[in-house]
Amino acid sequence: MAEKRPIITLLTDFGTKDHFVSSVKASILSINPNVELVDITHEIPAHDVFAAALTLRNAYDVFPRFTLHLAVVDPTVGSARRPIVVMTDNYNFVGPDNGIFSYIYQQEQINRVVQITAEHNYRQPVSNTFHARDIFAPIAAWMTKGVDPLKMGEEIDDYLRFTVPSPQEFSPALIKGHIIQIDHFGNCITNISPKELTPERMLLNKALVVNNYQIARFCNYYAECPEGEVCALFGSAGLLEIATPKGSAASLLGASRGTEVALHFAVQ
Amino acid sequence: MAEKRPIITLLTDFGTKDHFVSSVKASILSINPNVELVDITHEIPAHDVFAAALTLRNAYDVFPRFTLHLAVVDPTVGSARRPIVVMTDNYNFVGPDNGIFSYIYQQEQINRVVQITAEHNYRQPVSNTFHARDIFAPIAAWMTKGVDPLKMGEEIDDYLRFTVPSPQEFSPALIKGHIIQIDHFGNCITNISPKELTPERMLLNKALVVNNYQIARFCNYYAECPEGEVCALFGSAGLLEIATPKGSAASLLGASRGTEVALHFAVQ
Amino acid sequence: MAEKRPIITLLTDFGTKDHFVSSVKASILSINPNVELVDITHEIPAHDVFAAALTLRNAYDVFPRFTLHLAVVDPTVGSARRPIVVMTDNYNFVGPDNGIFSYIYQQEQINRVVQITAEHNYRQPVSNTFHARDIFAPIAAWMTKGVDPLKMGEEIDDYLRFTVPSPQEFSPALIKGHIIQIDHFGNCITNISPKELTPERMLLNKALVVNNYQIARFCNYYAECPEGEVCALFGSAGLLEIATPKGSAASLLGASRGTEVALHFAVQ
Repeated sequence: MAEKRPIITLLTDFGTKDHFVSSVKASILSINPNVELVDITHEIPAHDVFAAALTLRNAYDVFPRFTLHLAVVDPTVGSARRPIVVMTDNYNFVGPDNGIFSYIYQQEQINRVVQITAEHNYRQPVSNTFHARDIFAPIAAWMTKGVDPLKMGEEIDDYLRFTVPSPQEFSPALIKGHIIQIDHFGNCITNISPKELTPERMLLNKALVVNNYQIARFCNYYAECPEGEVCALFGSAGLLEIATPKGSAASLLGASRGTEVALHFAVQ
Repeated sequence: MAEKRPIITLLTDFGTKDHFVSSVKASILSINPNVELVDITHEIPAHDVFAAALTLRNAYDVFPRFTLHLAVVDPTVGSARRPIVVMTDNYNFVGPDNGIFSYIYQQEQINRVVQITAEHNYRQPVSNTFHARDIFAPIAAWMTKGVDPLKMGEEIDDYLRFTVPSPQEFSPALIKGHIIQIDHFGNCITNISPKELTPERMLLNKALVVNNYQIARFCNYYAECPEGEVCALFGSAGLLEIATPKGSAASLLGASRGTEVALHFAVQ
Repeated sequence: MAEKRPIITLLTDFGTKDHFVSSVKASILSINPNVELVDITHEIPAHDVFAAALTLRNAYDVFPRFTLHLAVVDPTVGSARRPIVVMTDNYNFVGPDNGIFSYIYQQEQINRVVQITAEHNYRQPVSNTFHARDIFAPIAAWMTKGVDPLKMGEEIDDYLRFTVPSPQEFSPALIKGHIIQIDHFGNCITNISPKELTPERMLLNKALVVNNYQIARFCNYYAECPEGEVCALFGSAGLLEIATPKGSAASLLGASRGTEVALHFAVQ
């Protein structure tokens, strides 16, 4: 029986046309050749820390326990922003302290955040423009070799987090949220979860309004909706999304990230 | 000597910008961390079951014996369409019963098709919109751990298959086929194989007509054709394709999937 | 402790939408199932041997010693151009003899270049259009199984190399170079290295001129430059690049590969 290899996932905005991603992997494999590398994506829009944070939220907890998630969207690479390790009971995260782990801070019990300072663990010489290769990858690789992050730096509690955008309840008849992501299929992912649209409220007469388009059809799966029409459903990330079968709801509604979504209920 | 790891290939229309592909891999690795995961592609056009079937046809049999191919283009995910396992002497296939394995049914001796029903083998809770993660990936992973598909469901023989588009022989002087794929380089792959354009017929005077463009040059390899000109040749998938060196034949001819191709022979 | 698996990297212009890349991997895994496959990129512009050579230059030496780099951009596949293995103290390279290893010849001490001729080591039947699958992948795989390239062919010294484009010093006050790559972020990578822009010259008053745009700001990292402005800095590949924070310098300057870059110094 082969030994179980530690998993490192990779999430960046590096694209896939240059050598960047391979250099991160090479840097890891130079320290620990026995890791399993899994790409989450490298197509986060350039410099878009929020999109990275959200994609990490959608991806991280399907992975086996003790997976290490390496997430680098790092517009201020080379500046004083800190490299950090975020530790929970189930996962470790490595990346820049720029808010990229904001959803993790919101969703998980955080055991410890460590600022890494042990330069002898870095790849030498450290470039000013590619810390993913020279700092973050080595930190991740050493951790999969059993090195305790506390041996590489110091615990901090002033790590950066942005406020995760939440829907607002204006009245029992109105909740307002936003589209926070357009996926590959053109589905519009909102920030409305079953916390707002509870099973009880699902029983009420209700409609979503997006860009003056009213969506009264709530489905369980995409193909339940007639072609050409638009529906709302809870998707695999646990968020309410707007979809049209075999088409792009985003194009159809003219919606994009940031578009407001109003959820109206018929209440007495 | 390290143990040989079972191979699972992945073929989807999920794109690579979201978390989807990584979630399928995470789901597999949670059950069997010792698999070798190989992407075929995730850029099948959204919902295009035919393109997936054809790409699987071109890819599957280069892999070592006992490779498991996981193919999910699944516009009716969540509906009553069945998850199936297709078994041949050399390969196993896992995916939705929507015709995605039609070329496999045509080309291979099928030993058994099994409808999977063993919900205790699925990832829980099962979402309505992401069976690749919650149903297909676990089935594939359990199979690489040695679980017999017949222990997870029942044999069926009414599985869905579409008719694979074949060329038609109108006369000894005329065969009509179609372009069934445009590849990354702009080469136009037809459905004409050496079954129609036999070695004997290769010796005849002949020409392909596509969109009023006549192609009389038949080559053995791309660079044999002068630049700026168009040729026909048998490509690596065993199908006649139309190409132009260092350029896109599809752009040059205004051809796309479905474009008719007429093969004329000079016969007495 | 698991055995260290040999690494094969892959660099092609095959794109990622077809079955091509998976067929190369399948061909390798059929011979050696215990390799670690790492993609450098498959998005080299079609037939662009120079871009492949440059990307290989930027990628190869981050990998652990004894990594085998398989690089195939091969517009003349099927013709008489030779399959070769390039051997240095640290790395092996496999690909077509068309100049793709020109930067390696420039930067590394070459121990040996071997033309491969041992057809019994190829995948059979050998297609005329897909040598990456049928010739190069098997050669690479056999090498990771310990087969000596000299057992598969003969040493040559007339291998093809193009002249790597170098900056020219016109006077102590003027060096002219070119942009040789636009990266994913729109950064413009020049061929000016610290050999031309030495630490001593870095202390002089100086400016880059590109398309009538004068860049006098030299930074250490991207975010040091004010947003909306353009700077020059030495990037992670050791080359002078032109960048603008959170934006595309290439769009801003209307620059592309081949654009001239003039570096002026204020000298007495």
